Amino acid sequence: MDERLKKQMEFSLEIDKEKNIFRQTSLSGHGRKENDAEHAWHMAIMAYILREYANEKVDITKVMLMCLIHDIVEIDAGDTYAYDAEGLKTQKAREDAAKQRIFSMLPDDQKTEFISLFDEFEQAESAEARFAHSMDNLQPLMLNNSNGGSDWIEHGVTADKVYGRQQGTRPGSEILYELTDKIIKENIDKGSLKL
Amino acid sequence: MDERLKKQMEFSLEIDKEKNIFRQTSLSGHGRKENDAEHAWHMAIMAYILREYANEKVDITKVMLMCLIHDIVEIDAGDTYAYDAEGLKTQKAREDAAKQRIFSMLPDDQKTEFISLFDEFEQAESAEARFAHSMDNLQPLMLNNSNGGSDWIEHGVTADKVYGRQQGTRPGSEILYELTDKIIKENIDKGSLKL
Repeated sequence: MDERLKKQMEFSLEIDKEKNIFRQTSLSGHGRKENDAEHAWHMAIMAYILREYANEKVDITKVMLMCLIHDIVEIDAGDTYAYDAEGLKTQKAREDAAKQRIFSMLPDDQKTEFISLFDEFEQAESAEARFAHSMDNLQPLMLNNSNGGSDWIEHGVTADKVYGRQQGTRPGSEILYELTDKIIKENIDKGSLKL
Repeated sequence: MDERLKKQMEFSLEIDKEKNIFRQTSLSGHGRKENDAEHAWHMAIMAYILREYANEKVDITKVMLMCLIHDIVEIDAGDTYAYDAEGLKTQKAREDAAKQRIFSMLPDDQKTEFISLFDEFEQAESAEARFAHSMDNLQPLMLNNSNGGSDWIEHGVTADKVYGRQQGTRPGSEILYELTDKIIKENIDKGSLKL
């Protein structure tokens, strides 16, 4: 087999491992915890459906790609829960090492492209990255809300922490942030999110 | 909430159920069975990485969208194993009913768009649909091959059946079909695929 195709297939097989990285979000219907691959799939479709709400015009292909690949580094680095203060301190170093190892399996041009996409997502400075972050926040919020806020209750997460995290939705979409704010307020009123 | 956004969010939540539809393919490392959402995520990334091998120039955004949504109908219709002759007889009717129910949750314009994308994939007559089918075949073949052909062994699948199914890769990509043929031949030689 051609060396280029061989590398592409080895990378394709390697990312299968993302299906074993589980998050703290439960599936709807009070299901099991979600894994990174499912989360990425869900975000990519939501990005396409909801793209009309992006604050700025976005290249939707790029947004979808960012959604699809943004958690590949967690194959090595593991999932860091959004409200895990200790884990968050070491997250960047762990993910940088993972990024180098995993994307280096690709041919050089694609390695460069994927690292650049991943970095752009992380920096959240482009319109596409900002909208992808809106999806990264909204998708688990939607699932958790559908379960009556059970993930927040399980982890004793408070409203200020959720508001802190969900601020990242606003630069990508004011309209989806309004929806987010409404969902958070409803969960405070119901008592599933403590003040 | 605006009626349009409400419908888009209801659809987004509904498709979460795809994560509970399990396939007959095992994850690499002799893992558990894969679900439809994971399969779709994997196909979409592979389509992007391998797009240079498409027989014809493809609109990669469309290919990725087809990969992401092609199994949503299985939320109602269930997964039909590629070598389940009885199930295959009723598959189209079950999937047509599912397509109407699920995509009708979207606003009309997006309903029309998603049904059209799904139908285009099913008909496999456009360059994009043909390449998406190459991914639908290659992704599980890659996983199964990584596990020494254990899925074929478990189901007693024969080489002619696999060749029959994998013919669908060729109209999308001659090069990836050559790779497929090589993988099948290796599995025959190893005895994991019976003649």
